[in-house]
Amino acid sequence: MNGKKGSIVIKIDDRPETGKKDSGDVGESPAKKWIRDVWQFAKEDMNRITFSLKVGLAVLLVSLLILIRAPYEVFGTSIIWSILTVAIMFEYTVGATFNRGFNRALGSLLAGIFAITMMQVAMACGQIAEPYIIALSIFFVGAITSFMKLYPSLVPYEYGFRVILFTYCLIIISGYRMGNPIRTAMDRMYSIAIGGIVTVLVNSLVFPIWAGEQLHLELVGSFNAVADSLEECVKKYLADDGSSHPEFSKTVMDDFADEPAFHKCRATLNSSAKFEAVANSAKWEPPHGRFRHFFYPWSEYVKVGAVLRHCAYEVMALHGCLHSEIQAPYNLRCAFQPEILDATNQAAELLRSLGKDINNMKRSLQTNLLKRVHSSTERLQRSIDMHSYLLTSSHEIQDCPPKLPISQPSNTVTCTSKDSLSQVEKSESNNEKPNSADTKPVQGDSYHETMRKQQRRLYSWPSREVDDYEDGDVDTEMLQKMRTFESTAALSLATFTSLLIEFVARLDHLVDATDLLAKMAKFKEDY
Amino acid sequence: MNGKKGSIVIKIDDRPETGKKDSGDVGESPAKKWIRDVWQFAKEDMNRITFSLKVGLAVLLVSLLILIRAPYEVFGTSIIWSILTVAIMFEYTVGATFNRGFNRALGSLLAGIFAITMMQVAMACGQIAEPYIIALSIFFVGAITSFMKLYPSLVPYEYGFRVILFTYCLIIISGYRMGNPIRTAMDRMYSIAIGGIVTVLVNSLVFPIWAGEQLHLELVGSFNAVADSLEECVKKYLADDGSSHPEFSKTVMDDFADEPAFHKCRATLNSSAKFEAVANSAKWEPPHGRFRHFFYPWSEYVKVGAVLRHCAYEVMALHGCLHSEIQAPYNLRCAFQPEILDATNQAAELLRSLGKDINNMKRSLQTNLLKRVHSSTERLQRSIDMHSYLLTSSHEIQDCPPKLPISQPSNTVTCTSKDSLSQVEKSESNNEKPNSADTKPVQGDSYHETMRKQQRRLYSWPSREVDDYEDGDVDTEMLQKMRTFESTAALSLATFTSLLIEFVARLDHLVDATDLLAKMAKFKEDY
Repeated sequence: MNGKKGSIVIKIDDRPETGKKDSGDVGESPAKKWIRDVWQFAKEDMNRITFSLKVGLAVLLVSLLILIRAPYEVFGTSIIWSILTVAIMFEYTVGATFNRGFNRALGSLLAGIFAITMMQVAMACGQIAEPYIIALSIFFVGAITSFMKLYPSLVPYEYGFRVILFTYCLIIISGYRMGNPIRTAMDRMYSIAIGGIVTVLVNSLVFPIWAGEQLHLELVGSFNAVADSLEECVKKYLADDGSSHPEFSKTVMDDFADEPAFHKCRATLNSSAKFEAVANSAKWEPPHGRFRHFFYPWSEYVKVGAVLRHCAYEVMALHGCLHSEIQAPYNLRCAFQPEILDATNQAAELLRSLGKDINNMKRSLQTNLLKRVHSSTERLQRSIDMHSYLLTSSHEIQDCPPKLPISQPSNTVTCTSKDSLSQVEKSESNNEKPNSADTKPVQGDSYHETMRKQQRRLYSWPSREVDDYEDGDVDTEMLQKMRTFESTAALSLATFTSLLIEFVARLDHLVDATDLLAKMAKFKEDY
Repeated sequence: MNGKKGSIVIKIDDRPETGKKDSGDVGESPAKKWIRDVWQFAKEDMNRITFSLKVGLAVLLVSLLILIRAPYEVFGTSIIWSILTVAIMFEYTVGATFNRGFNRALGSLLAGIFAITMMQVAMACGQIAEPYIIALSIFFVGAITSFMKLYPSLVPYEYGFRVILFTYCLIIISGYRMGNPIRTAMDRMYSIAIGGIVTVLVNSLVFPIWAGEQLHLELVGSFNAVADSLEECVKKYLADDGSSHPEFSKTVMDDFADEPAFHKCRATLNSSAKFEAVANSAKWEPPHGRFRHFFYPWSEYVKVGAVLRHCAYEVMALHGCLHSEIQAPYNLRCAFQPEILDATNQAAELLRSLGKDINNMKRSLQTNLLKRVHSSTERLQRSIDMHSYLLTSSHEIQDCPPKLPISQPSNTVTCTSKDSLSQVEKSESNNEKPNSADTKPVQGDSYHETMRKQQRRLYSWPSREVDDYEDGDVDTEMLQKMRTFESTAALSLATFTSLLIEFVARLDHLVDATDLLAKMAKFKEDY
């Protein structure tokens, strides 16, 4: 077993999920570093300390029932069961503790009733049959509870089934050996109840950690995570000049170490189970803090989370584009930079504003922001539309080189800094005269010749001069292949922007879902 | 509490995750339906029955130690602890049980040692100080174990910390009240050990359910899920003629009820935690069944799973395109149907073949399939490249209507049924003569006129005739907006194909990862 234990230990060392920020200091002793890591971890969320001290307090209170003579004489040794109950029932949030307590209580109750009934049946059957009946009943209780806890809709009550199993066994067996099963069962129930009550009281009265509050903050955090990740991804895409493209598999294994926001976004994507669990706990909590009315719509939080995740999938796709094998040329990306950046920033701002509104429990319509997002996206669409020849390039340009009157429709685009695009236009209008002679379709060799020439001009643009290549003798077949690849590469920019636009389109639904939540949770209106 | 309990019950009824197939019979009594659902659930995976019966057997065996007089007289009442141990330790797979047993054993041992030490210290401090020292130690053990189990790298050992807490409390308190803590601790250890041994023996000798086997099958299943989902998504995309486009939010809430493969694919995406948990369990298992050598590379399974998930994100993006707000016209999608379908089928076949090889523990290079995938993708790329004017449409066509010699480069594309594309070509070559007059750039109104005309022809193509629209008086501003939208819509096809191509590009890495797994797991070679 030693070897196996070793491999587990290595795995722990592999993932210092906290304390990443501390990598600055190197010449530090491991013990010191470890203490600082733990301290950092505790500081991140002071609730962790609160929780730990509360558990300590709860077990201490129960232990006092034994350590002090008076209660010990009342309850007897069976009081140790209350310690077990505290250790098993104490959960992080109030709701989860209530939920677990409910499982424990119902499980114990069912097991108790069933055990006593069974005991009477066994005793009625006579002394010889008794142990056989008990053994058989234990076997069936074990098999049935184990089967039921596998059933998908009963999985959340897994703990309850375990409780039924061992409580049943304990009661029926102690009853058989010690006589008076009802007394045994009652004693056990008392001590379990004491443990449960101590747990619930300490958990909900001493600095309570509410699942509802956690869910609320989690949702707000998700909005910010998606917004951050979107901005990070787009910024990286526009900055990526193709010079430093590491191996894909390495990036996957490194898990995109240089993209912290991406990690948060992916965590949001994987948080659906957590969301549902916390919402499930929150439903058990009484009105508290900011959430002051009964039947608070916790399930709406889950729904908003689902729509947000649907938006986040689009961010994952954008991230996929960023790390795609086939990349649009850097210059092409630069050409659309202002519009892409503008749309991204507006979308991120809308997301953050939605998150902020939920956080402040305010209900506002976001009309202005939504309008701005839409108009900036429309600008991006129009810009892509205007300059779509840059994206597909190959065939049309064979016949008609880009001497089209771009400047004329261009004035409908109301962007601020369009230096890159105008540069393209200029560089292309320079070549206008010599190429305009080739405008008519030419068949055969000379046609291909023209095509190739323009092809090269387009893709080496704007850093190189056309004439540099004029003398070279390039293989047509090879060129054909390259061209196909390059065309796909240029289309990858179209993909990126399409995904961005789709992301914005989904924001509408997010606004709707958020508004529904605000309405149902009766957030204060703020128009 | 009743109201809350009710809401939980409703939630259970909401999700009949099993038994979906049985919706055919309506006039059935609920009890009968329920029994059939349960039967269906058991039949899906007979291991569930096996597991349940094994748990029954294990608790029965431990109970016999008390029910039969001879062992009961040896062990005494503390034997009931072994029942608790079985109920808590018995897990679904052998590896998970070993892992849990290790947690339990180490936790109990640490708690025992610490409790005995503490007991000696307390006794040495005199009778008055003793209870205070014990109480303080309980408080600190409770607080420290609770804090440590929150620490991310220690979360898998959460159960171990709970065991430490309650074992410590039980030993030190019973020791205080009953005297002779070492005797108490030893008795407890014996019975826990007996429970643990019974659990481990029953779990690993009677029809063992191996985590390794589960992981193996899970990975193979994931390959098939991604392949199915890819095919389903592409098929749906090509078949979707825009006639029945339900509300997006409704689709999200319905959770895409008509796409079973999509659900499986998303489950694969969310399975990273499960994969790691099962791999973690598998590491605890001795060589067994098909996995006959020591240090079997279970972690490689997790890595292949990660790369596969990276491919699956692309499928999610494709699925996003399918349910996108902005859709490419149906006819345009039809135009590229043969190439898209071909690439999809090849990719799905490669995925399935990889899955099958893993399943059969064979190592083959997949060169042929990979080559075919590549060439079919290349054909798709080339076809998109050839007909990219269809995708961006607006500006180039203003100057040069599609009278380009498509048929000439088209012979490099070796597709079987290109009826749709050739139809486009024909319908466009019909208009060749009248349009070729407008080839030169025309400024002002007449330029816009031409543009508009061609615009409409392109987007109403091929179902309507150009001349139908000639007389209508359409607002230019409106047309401009529509055009932008339509151009983006057409680009959405480019997005779809780009994502598909990117998916194929990632398959290379999947092949590499799978090959590495095959090498490390020493699959038999099969070239």
